Amino acid sequence: LTSADAAAADAGRPGLLGLLGPVAVGTAVEAASGDGAWLQAMLDAEAALARAQARHGMVSARAASAISDAARVGDFDVWGIAVSARASGNPVIPLVADLREAVSPEAADCVHRGATSQDIMDTAAMLVAARCRTLILADLRAVALTLADLAAAHRLTPMAGRTLTQHAVPTTFGLKAAGWRSLVLDACERLASVRLPAQLGGAAGTLAALSEFGRAAAVDVSVLVEAYACELGLAAPELPWHVLRTPVADLAAALGFTAAALGKVAADVLTLSRSEIGEVAEGVGGGSSAMPHKSNPVRSTLIAAAARQAPAASAVLISALSAEDERPAGAWHSEWQPLRELLRLAGGAAEAARGLTAGLVVDPERMRRNLDLTGFVTSERLAVVLTGLVGVHEARALVGRAVARGVPFDQDPELLAVVDEERLRDLADPAGYLGAAGELVDRALARSGAVAEGPTP
Amino acid sequence: LTSADAAAADAGRPGLLGLLGPVAVGTAVEAASGDGAWLQAMLDAEAALARAQARHGMVSARAASAISDAARVGDFDVWGIAVSARASGNPVIPLVADLREAVSPEAADCVHRGATSQDIMDTAAMLVAARCRTLILADLRAVALTLADLAAAHRLTPMAGRTLTQHAVPTTFGLKAAGWRSLVLDACERLASVRLPAQLGGAAGTLAALSEFGRAAAVDVSVLVEAYACELGLAAPELPWHVLRTPVADLAAALGFTAAALGKVAADVLTLSRSEIGEVAEGVGGGSSAMPHKSNPVRSTLIAAAARQAPAASAVLISALSAEDERPAGAWHSEWQPLRELLRLAGGAAEAARGLTAGLVVDPERMRRNLDLTGFVTSERLAVVLTGLVGVHEARALVGRAVARGVPFDQDPELLAVVDEERLRDLADPAGYLGAAGELVDRALARSGAVAEGPTP
Amino acid sequence: LTSADAAAADAGRPGLLGLLGPVAVGTAVEAASGDGAWLQAMLDAEAALARAQARHGMVSARAASAISDAARVGDFDVWGIAVSARASGNPVIPLVADLREAVSPEAADCVHRGATSQDIMDTAAMLVAARCRTLILADLRAVALTLADLAAAHRLTPMAGRTLTQHAVPTTFGLKAAGWRSLVLDACERLASVRLPAQLGGAAGTLAALSEFGRAAAVDVSVLVEAYACELGLAAPELPWHVLRTPVADLAAALGFTAAALGKVAADVLTLSRSEIGEVAEGVGGGSSAMPHKSNPVRSTLIAAAARQAPAASAVLISALSAEDERPAGAWHSEWQPLRELLRLAGGAAEAARGLTAGLVVDPERMRRNLDLTGFVTSERLAVVLTGLVGVHEARALVGRAVARGVPFDQDPELLAVVDEERLRDLADPAGYLGAAGELVDRALARSGAVAEGPTP
Amino acid sequence: LTSADAAAADAGRPGLLGLLGPVAVGTAVEAASGDGAWLQAMLDAEAALARAQARHGMVSARAASAISDAARVGDFDVWGIAVSARASGNPVIPLVADLREAVSPEAADCVHRGATSQDIMDTAAMLVAARCRTLILADLRAVALTLADLAAAHRLTPMAGRTLTQHAVPTTFGLKAAGWRSLVLDACERLASVRLPAQLGGAAGTLAALSEFGRAAAVDVSVLVEAYACELGLAAPELPWHVLRTPVADLAAALGFTAAALGKVAADVLTLSRSEIGEVAEGVGGGSSAMPHKSNPVRSTLIAAAARQAPAASAVLISALSAEDERPAGAWHSEWQPLRELLRLAGGAAEAARGLTAGLVVDPERMRRNLDLTGFVTSERLAVVLTGLVGVHEARALVGRAVARGVPFDQDPELLAVVDEERLRDLADPAGYLGAAGELVDRALARSGAVAEGPTP
Repeated sequence: LTSADAAAADAGRPGLLGLLGPVAVGTAVEAASGDGAWLQAMLDAEAALARAQARHGMVSARAASAISDAARVGDFDVWGIAVSARASGNPVIPLVADLREAVSPEAADCVHRGATSQDIMDTAAMLVAARCRTLILADLRAVALTLADLAAAHRLTPMAGRTLTQHAVPTTFGLKAAGWRSLVLDACERLASVRLPAQLGGAAGTLAALSEFGRAAAVDVSVLVEAYACELGLAAPELPWHVLRTPVADLAAALGFTAAALGKVAADVLTLSRSEIGEVAEGVGGGSSAMPHKSNPVRSTLIAAAARQAPAASAVLISALSAEDERPAGAWHSEWQPLRELLRLAGGAAEAARGLTAGLVVDPERMRRNLDLTGFVTSERLAVVLTGLVGVHEARALVGRAVARGVPFDQDPELLAVVDEERLRDLADPAGYLGAAGELVDRALARSGAVAEGPTP
Repeated sequence: LTSADAAAADAGRPGLLGLLGPVAVGTAVEAASGDGAWLQAMLDAEAALARAQARHGMVSARAASAISDAARVGDFDVWGIAVSARASGNPVIPLVADLREAVSPEAADCVHRGATSQDIMDTAAMLVAARCRTLILADLRAVALTLADLAAAHRLTPMAGRTLTQHAVPTTFGLKAAGWRSLVLDACERLASVRLPAQLGGAAGTLAALSEFGRAAAVDVSVLVEAYACELGLAAPELPWHVLRTPVADLAAALGFTAAALGKVAADVLTLSRSEIGEVAEGVGGGSSAMPHKSNPVRSTLIAAAARQAPAASAVLISALSAEDERPAGAWHSEWQPLRELLRLAGGAAEAARGLTAGLVVDPERMRRNLDLTGFVTSERLAVVLTGLVGVHEARALVGRAVARGVPFDQDPELLAVVDEERLRDLADPAGYLGAAGELVDRALARSGAVAEGPTP
Repeated sequence: LTSADAAAADAGRPGLLGLLGPVAVGTAVEAASGDGAWLQAMLDAEAALARAQARHGMVSARAASAISDAARVGDFDVWGIAVSARASGNPVIPLVADLREAVSPEAADCVHRGATSQDIMDTAAMLVAARCRTLILADLRAVALTLADLAAAHRLTPMAGRTLTQHAVPTTFGLKAAGWRSLVLDACERLASVRLPAQLGGAAGTLAALSEFGRAAAVDVSVLVEAYACELGLAAPELPWHVLRTPVADLAAALGFTAAALGKVAADVLTLSRSEIGEVAEGVGGGSSAMPHKSNPVRSTLIAAAARQAPAASAVLISALSAEDERPAGAWHSEWQPLRELLRLAGGAAEAARGLTAGLVVDPERMRRNLDLTGFVTSERLAVVLTGLVGVHEARALVGRAVARGVPFDQDPELLAVVDEERLRDLADPAGYLGAAGELVDRALARSGAVAEGPTP
Repeated sequence: LTSADAAAADAGRPGLLGLLGPVAVGTAVEAASGDGAWLQAMLDAEAALARAQARHGMVSARAASAISDAARVGDFDVWGIAVSARASGNPVIPLVADLREAVSPEAADCVHRGATSQDIMDTAAMLVAARCRTLILADLRAVALTLADLAAAHRLTPMAGRTLTQHAVPTTFGLKAAGWRSLVLDACERLASVRLPAQLGGAAGTLAALSEFGRAAAVDVSVLVEAYACELGLAAPELPWHVLRTPVADLAAALGFTAAALGKVAADVLTLSRSEIGEVAEGVGGGSSAMPHKSNPVRSTLIAAAARQAPAASAVLISALSAEDERPAGAWHSEWQPLRELLRLAGGAAEAARGLTAGLVVDPERMRRNLDLTGFVTSERLAVVLTGLVGVHEARALVGRAVARGVPFDQDPELLAVVDEERLRDLADPAGYLGAAGELVDRALARSGAVAEGPTP
């Protein structure tokens, strides 16, 4: 098969169906961020613009209605528009031409009045982001609920606290789950609080053409801008933000945070489900093409993969803040794909986390067994107690020697010379050294998971 | 000179003095984020811990006082501690040893009680961040004030609006400055709202050792944690956040935003001060080692360089959210340098922006001259007017042909057949096509530049 | 329209058709890297494996032939496989099941023998990369040829050399074009020299199952691996590289280099085609949805946008080198989308650069006019000459004062006291101060543009 | 302590001593890349320029000698130069002034002749890179040697092959070590093959001033450029590369590769040294500030941290390829710190890897014990054998049921109905299913570790 053949083969099945993006494929966020959804959002923006202008007498109600009726993605050639975008630099120019074709000449005159391409693209991006955000937040909230249950159920389930890969001191699985939930709620709050404004500025962000059109109807453009935003359910912009990219940068930060925070959950599940650790398992793991016995932690894997990709995409969007002029040559164009990819990475990871946490199998017995592995997981406690008796230097030296000898504390002659046997046995009990784990879980769970979404227009 | 020689040469002047970091060198943020400042912050954390414990009877007031007195960076060997950190993985372990040496044996027993290295490192990072933030916000506020003045002064100063590098329609320099200010205020708000909590969790985030120490004194650990945070002027943590890295990720987002947003200002100044454009100039430019006539836009250059570096550093910090276990092997350690670098990039850029905006020379005459360059900067306006007369298709075609002919609108026979000469002359006046620029400036300036800093403890 | 509606709208037109990726949409590289092409490459890998095994008697020729015949992407449900990949973590598992279904039971037994999913995915990635590379190299070579012509034609066409945005000393457009070509050839060499090996390692990279299957046929597995690579036209691997990701990291570096290097060309064209500079223009620019007079440098814009995205994608792939175990949980999965995106960004940018350079309109007259703008573009030359007469300090001071006075050199009384008028006039001629520009062009053009592609298997 | 206090405290100990960079602190690469080393390299460049010019009669031998004698970093005020750099945008301008001060007026006239700041900065960067490269390559070669020994010694030491965190099939520790070595050699080759040219182009890369100076002495500038490069032991440039940043981009790719490839070794050591796995250990681990029993894998941790930071720094450098004009405003300035940071991250990681591999403790017994953990680590082999007997579908089903029952293969009634007991016992032996591990080790070790360094001038 030559590359020409491959191209030919592809010609019959153009485009991307999610083959290389398993974290998001088949999810609601994938559908809500596809090319069809994006083009529909552009059409929504054009229709809203016409309706807002009709409301204030700038175009006829009939024209606005005709434009709204025509603004259905199903009637447009996505591929054709996409290809034409290469010549014009963005897909709005061919879309506007097609939309004008789709309506009467009178209505055609009223299409895209006073707007520039970027007004429509940016507004569409905000609409798509808003729709995806609703989906992502629903998944994150479901994850938080499940984690609250896990945290409560395992409030005092002892397990090894691990630091730098080594057993440190005991912790509880409930505290771990409560920590995960805390991160998930942080993600919710950051995502929910991003302000998503409509975009309307005209050619260079002065609203000049709109003002010109509006003059005849004696309409104040700021009223028009608000009506436009209102039609779309988006926030009204303080200023046109063609080159003031705060909304995109904020989305980038919040989505990057979300994916990477879920990556924490995945990192822990991947570690704890290792064959040698086995403290948790994904309820239904993935199979192997070669090994019948395997059950792979697939959801964690896909979340981890998303977490590895998202911060780089965020960085591209943050960089795009540094855009020259009134509309830039490149910075803006560099946002489109990374923004969609971020929505999908964060959204896919949230959906996978929902399944992951809902199906998570926790094995307290294995946790307990692992906790006993080194025999010295409470050495810190012993050192604390000894510090009160012999000072910090001698305490650490004593415990160091005991650990080196490797016998249980309550059989160590040097320790028995300082502390009695029963107390030593007690001090060696991991379940007796959980610190404030329970109280910390309580405090974490007292935090409300209710998060108001987005701006009030 | 061999590399051994270079090393020898360096031995006499070890370390970094800012030679490769001109954006921050010599600034207050550089000083507040140096190794000395960081080590002092670690010592501040140790001292605060002792004092908080003394307040609640866990250690003697005398010990706490001795520890506080000893906690002066000038008495410690920064280089020695740094080198020792290579063996232990972080500088707190050697620092604690040195601090214990510096006090009486009784006080030594009270040093670092119940804490883990990361408690001290993270708290120090938050202290350094808080101190730098104060400095950065002061610079940003000064920038915003200057920009408010510029925006007001040039509210209606016409200049070419440029999109995709080409003259588009007129705008005003005031609107540009108002937009810059809007971004700067966005940066202020994002930076000011980052919550900077103290860190105290003990070995695995359960506060176990602290609980153990506290039991004798009947102290609730949560009270201790709050006392500790209060001593430091930091927020009290909801949970130990050894692996819940929201504060660091939030700082990363806000600092990355700040540097990249200032990059927008720099990008515009660099463009507008080009030899061929010359609409603005840095008051005092940089010289050249070879060309006597040059005056380089140095501040913009350094800001632009910072804006190019910051988002990548942010991405490293966001990635570190995905940290395994109760304390991770690598993710945490990867934060230290990028976090300092971000503080310096954002801080250096803010300081440079302060100088840049304060000294900016604006040339309205040159703006006006450039605006007349193409003769067609109001072609959109003409198209709008014609649309009302002949419909959108014909209007665009008419203007297209007129532009192709290249004669002034008021001398174009085809246009004169539709619109009278005086009106055409009027329509060609850039100053008459500023849209809502003035109102937008007013609206933007109505936004308050007052930003409350940080959390109330 | 609700988000449910958007999803429904999308359902009829699922997937991505390039709407947000204008730099690559409609190009050969886009087709060669689509989901269809990628799935075909997986099928190619499975077929090659069967044929290689048949050649060495491990499976029947008939089975291999049946598998090869069935391995046509047109007969497979890309979407169905993509969705199934979410449960298994990669698309090979469902693909193998479908491929087995598509052939006789006897042949089904011979499908995927001894392979693991990653063998097929990685091999497919290398096939797709190889096919795209051929296309990208063809475009780059065409660009290099055009640039050689431009460099030769404008070898001594004077233009302003610009540094830190300011006129510095004269250069020639030929030297600029020669520099662009040099970067393009660097990209060619880096891309062409990446070794693209087939992947075959089995479940954990030991070739165990293949050895087991091979034992009966007395086949040495290394022979089999080579036969497999040979069938595919790929290099034979030194070791299975499931977690030795040099090929992917090398691709990342070369593709990132390519996109960013083309970004240099774009950056220059964007600058030089600014309304105020106008020294070059894209032959056919892009239109505007609002301004009839505009001709946007669209190709440069799209290339610049690609250059802003590519390095971040490269970084994700470089990071994936740090992969744990024999096959990792996440690092590998994070490679797929960024690798495709990089192929498209570099490929799209190369195609756009081909059009850009082929159509570039150069305006030597405008270059000359701009060169005279400051009147001091040869101040360095004057300083050099004066250094020979009065020493470096006094020379710089003299020129500094002359520049400050702002009169032409040959009318400056202080200069006339040191150098005669004719010599001063001569020294002020930009065309007389081109340095070694011509010789540098010659030297650069002496470098061959012929680049051998890829490894000999 | 206020931030003003912190600044004051810092004032006495300005700058950075490696406190936050434990991976590189105290290493030879740190010394060779410090501010002192960098400034010395700039002085080396100035001295080489003077000597090269003296060799060709452009300046007197005496002047060149005086300049060379004065070019000792110890006599310069690094801090003062660094601070001055803020006003001029780079440290060469103040350095040249100081160097002129340090010599006689006659020699002062000969300082920096025909050069621009960037010539000196870029040449210094290449010198520093060359010196660091020598050190890094030495460490990498030592690592490769140790790994060759480990690979040979453990050629057939069985251990669990792990994929997606789960036991898959057996592998050998020798194959793992051979794979690590393969990556290390890849890093060596990539690093060694980077071409490091001197930089000499003059103000706008035309060598104009140098030509002007050279004319009197009838020197061809290309001869001068070669003499300059030769004095420095660097490659001669094809063209001035002020904005053709291939050398920096190549360094970025090679250094990023090195750090991330070493991250693979670290990731494996971190996993294998987990408390529950314990198959390897760092010979001397790091202590804990709180837990006497802990021995942390510190070197792996620091390497992992470096691997997380390096790719982002590389991305900044790759992005800098897209630089406008003859010398850019920002792109170039953004390279300095990330380049040094990359040298230190890669160099520090290489040094740590040297210690890590030299001291690595391997526990074959624990490997063997872990291998028996699931009892099904050879299920693939059983499936292969059964495929020959009952076809692939039935084979996988049989093994699947056996795994679900969880009894040893040789006691499973269903399996015993198909395969005899002794053969089943044999098939369950991990040591009998190592595939081609031994041969792969042999092949990998046949690759030479000898790598020629750098370009021949």
